[in-house]
Amino acid sequence: MEKVKRYRQFPIFRYPERTWMDKEVEKAPIWCSVDLRDGNQALVEPMGVEEKIEYFQLLCRLGFKEIEVGFPAASQIEYDFLRNLVERKLIPEDVTVQILVQCREELIERSFEALEGVKKAIVHIYNSTSILQREVVFKKSKEEIKAIALSGVEMVKRLEKNFHGALRLEYSPESFTGTEMDYALEVCNAVISAWGTAKNRKIIINLPNTVEMHSPNVFADQIEFMSDHLLERENVVLSIHPHNDRGEGIAAAELALLAGAERIEGTLFGNGERTGNVDILTLAYNMFSHGIDPALNLENIREIKEVYERCTKMQIPDRHPYAGKLVFTAFSGSHQDAINKGLQAMKEHSSLLWEVPYLPIDPADIGREYEPVVRINSQSGKGGVAFILDYQYGYKLPKGMQREFADYIQFISEKEGEVDPDRILKVFTEEYVEAKKPLFFKNLRSMDMEDEKNGYVSFVQLSFENSGVLKEVSASGSGPIEATVNALRKELKKDFTVMDYNEHALGAEASAKAVSYIHLMDRESGKSTFGVGISSNITRSSVRALFSAINRLYYPKTAEG
Amino acid sequence: MEKVKRYRQFPIFRYPERTWMDKEVEKAPIWCSVDLRDGNQALVEPMGVEEKIEYFQLLCRLGFKEIEVGFPAASQIEYDFLRNLVERKLIPEDVTVQILVQCREELIERSFEALEGVKKAIVHIYNSTSILQREVVFKKSKEEIKAIALSGVEMVKRLEKNFHGALRLEYSPESFTGTEMDYALEVCNAVISAWGTAKNRKIIINLPNTVEMHSPNVFADQIEFMSDHLLERENVVLSIHPHNDRGEGIAAAELALLAGAERIEGTLFGNGERTGNVDILTLAYNMFSHGIDPALNLENIREIKEVYERCTKMQIPDRHPYAGKLVFTAFSGSHQDAINKGLQAMKEHSSLLWEVPYLPIDPADIGREYEPVVRINSQSGKGGVAFILDYQYGYKLPKGMQREFADYIQFISEKEGEVDPDRILKVFTEEYVEAKKPLFFKNLRSMDMEDEKNGYVSFVQLSFENSGVLKEVSASGSGPIEATVNALRKELKKDFTVMDYNEHALGAEASAKAVSYIHLMDRESGKSTFGVGISSNITRSSVRALFSAINRLYYPKTAEG
Repeated sequence: MEKVKRYRQFPIFRYPERTWMDKEVEKAPIWCSVDLRDGNQALVEPMGVEEKIEYFQLLCRLGFKEIEVGFPAASQIEYDFLRNLVERKLIPEDVTVQILVQCREELIERSFEALEGVKKAIVHIYNSTSILQREVVFKKSKEEIKAIALSGVEMVKRLEKNFHGALRLEYSPESFTGTEMDYALEVCNAVISAWGTAKNRKIIINLPNTVEMHSPNVFADQIEFMSDHLLERENVVLSIHPHNDRGEGIAAAELALLAGAERIEGTLFGNGERTGNVDILTLAYNMFSHGIDPALNLENIREIKEVYERCTKMQIPDRHPYAGKLVFTAFSGSHQDAINKGLQAMKEHSSLLWEVPYLPIDPADIGREYEPVVRINSQSGKGGVAFILDYQYGYKLPKGMQREFADYIQFISEKEGEVDPDRILKVFTEEYVEAKKPLFFKNLRSMDMEDEKNGYVSFVQLSFENSGVLKEVSASGSGPIEATVNALRKELKKDFTVMDYNEHALGAEASAKAVSYIHLMDRESGKSTFGVGISSNITRSSVRALFSAINRLYYPKTAEG
Repeated sequence: MEKVKRYRQFPIFRYPERTWMDKEVEKAPIWCSVDLRDGNQALVEPMGVEEKIEYFQLLCRLGFKEIEVGFPAASQIEYDFLRNLVERKLIPEDVTVQILVQCREELIERSFEALEGVKKAIVHIYNSTSILQREVVFKKSKEEIKAIALSGVEMVKRLEKNFHGALRLEYSPESFTGTEMDYALEVCNAVISAWGTAKNRKIIINLPNTVEMHSPNVFADQIEFMSDHLLERENVVLSIHPHNDRGEGIAAAELALLAGAERIEGTLFGNGERTGNVDILTLAYNMFSHGIDPALNLENIREIKEVYERCTKMQIPDRHPYAGKLVFTAFSGSHQDAINKGLQAMKEHSSLLWEVPYLPIDPADIGREYEPVVRINSQSGKGGVAFILDYQYGYKLPKGMQREFADYIQFISEKEGEVDPDRILKVFTEEYVEAKKPLFFKNLRSMDMEDEKNGYVSFVQLSFENSGVLKEVSASGSGPIEATVNALRKELKKDFTVMDYNEHALGAEASAKAVSYIHLMDRESGKSTFGVGISSNITRSSVRALFSAINRLYYPKTAEG
């Protein structure tokens, strides 16, 4: 690639005194969610106030104690949201809300207005310090850039006096990783001194990987250098704010923890500008998988995912660690075999300790399931066929039916090799949904009545064809399906019974259809089979499933031809 | 989380002699694509033979010289695919195909059958060496496990004699990162000795991060230890095969390169089991962004993405580095400002070197575009409104029209604050698509003829209502649209001309509609505006756009009331 000449690496900072490579993470850092600010700002469709409130409440349930709620001086919506939180008393006692603001007087004043009535607040001021931004964007000297930061500190100190809650200051040298380390240190130390820290007046120094520029070991060196040289270190909370431009945000955060970082700003699932902020959930689950308490309540990843996807309108990728649809799915036969043996060994040793090949954690511990998927070939089992019908087409076959249907596919794959999903759907449709001979359901009228003796009773009038001959029958039962069963039992002179019944919506829209599965048994012979029906009307879908089951049970195709 | 007690970390390997933290990546490694094996095996719907061939050809165009094509002894499709490659002569001279196989005699024999006629081949044998797999899955001692590897080497050596192409051996101690390092080294060194290397008989030792168990510095320590202690090191190509369970696959690969790895097995966009294999494209673009030639042809990420998504039926996430839909989009006003200033500075200094805040590389260098998106509020510009209409609804407004339409939204947002996408669509529809008064298009018949003097000529008969009165007119022109313009100019006694015309499909299916945009100017006053029309028929959509433009130009709503 010729264009490679247009690029060069920003000079690498090395810290020869580093010790982080021999450290290990021992406890969870302080987590600060920036979902409602950095995350929200990067959404194609940002959240409205009510969505933000729902999201904020999710963050509180998950156990976040520090939440950046916006940049109220720059956005009316973010101002209104914060006022809503305060006036509707939605901020739990132990949660600190954080607001972001540039070092400009009118903006800081407006931010304090927005914070009125908040009991615990972090005012997060920042200015950009990188070489590139100083030269190209601000056209200011190092001294002038440092003066911006210090003026911000003075303004906050002044306004702090009239603020009634507990206040902490956070300072970020934005574009930190593109800044000369000695200069970044100089600015941060000037800020620390100007603020005046004490044991009960800690300052948060937040070092952003605004654009990820290097592999994560370089970030770790930078963090350890800063950690070793910040003034009044015992009163400084060293925070990081990694982004993910090189796809290494998680690693940068983990190595920075080894290097001395104590606090991490990030988002759920790594939402944020461009490639996103660092994903706090992956960091937390990584700790969990090592037996370190993540200090967040992450047992129910389905709920987190549901709220996240709805509010942000972003989709979690199928291979996203811990949360992605496919990450607990084993496609390979040898992996499945090893997983089974691992589970078996745990059982034999009555071991609680999770040690299973190819599964870093027990999916059940975070509200998920392990899904072994056998390829749809002659070695396949029912799991694979059922998975395909569900994942590709939305049919959730009841357990007992999976084996029955898988046998059809097994038969085909023995002759033809691997069977593709379209073919599986076709066989499913032909064998079940279109099992309409010899009995062909035409119409059903039903009436529900309350009867003094029997309670609710359904009366049905059913019309259908039997090998082309129109029949009309009627009967009653406790519901329309039972009544239909009764009518058909009498008419056909067969003694069958419904063993099990399942139904679910097919597709998510309002126009969705219902699919019904009926497990039908002939009481004389004990033989049983399944039938399937589809309709936008749930009663009709059930009746169709019943006809499908009867046709399949008493008039199987093989017998016909 | 109480369940955290079920976990503990696999013991961390430390290599105190490490030097990787002070190294930097200087050149691209040997890339080996495992898309067609490890990637394909993890697809819900694996590729068929023809899709695999298309994908293989993409990999060759991208410049991959080593491509793992499957596990032919375990899968008939993979066997058939390899035979297709050979028999249809689809393997370029400089490309080596690699096949995976377990150390079992019948499988290795079958693999050599599949390789018949291949000019350059790598036979990749493996067995699992981790403590957990030895104990739980194989129930074998260290000696027995090592013996499996050595038996594989002997079988390949035996079959090599009758193979006519150039052959290389690759050995992987699968689940390497869960293995005691001294034992992994012992097995690898036994394999190296048994194979018998020479300068022209190198062996590939591939160390998989089968399940990512630690932060990437630990993997780097493991790799550097192995690199330092492998026998006949100058004849060993040290390869890695990272997975991504902790979301750190990219970082693990980059640190492993510093630690001595020379070859990387991975996939496009990180497809693969669970959270995926390492993403070779992100690794390569990371190098590119540092001015290091990635040794792959990556100028056209759109093409790569298109083939990938079609063949794998996986979707590339919106925030995926370099390839995601949103990664070159700047939503924040201050980011946009800084980007503009950076671009301006490059222009002023006539600098070719890319130095722009918030954009690690020039998107144009990989076939993409920078998209600044202003929020849809009273400070918004046209870019934001146009982005929403495109991203959310698929309308790609021509440049000139963006300003005109944005003014409507600006007007609303000044009164009401932020404007949401549905509202934007509603205004767009009302102002353009439904601008059907006073002229309402009814029908068009057109006939195209060849005329000796004028070449092709279109005749049209047009019916429309003018304030409810039906009109029928006809005219000719070089095409149906020009003829319609001529007919309307005459009938309405207005002197307008079409300044610009755009049309695109709305939606991707066969049933897609066409949307047309017409920029119309009145020649007397010089005033101009845009009109929009939609139809499943492209001529009708254009005529509708013309009517919309005429109504908007001569009979604006404000004039009506």
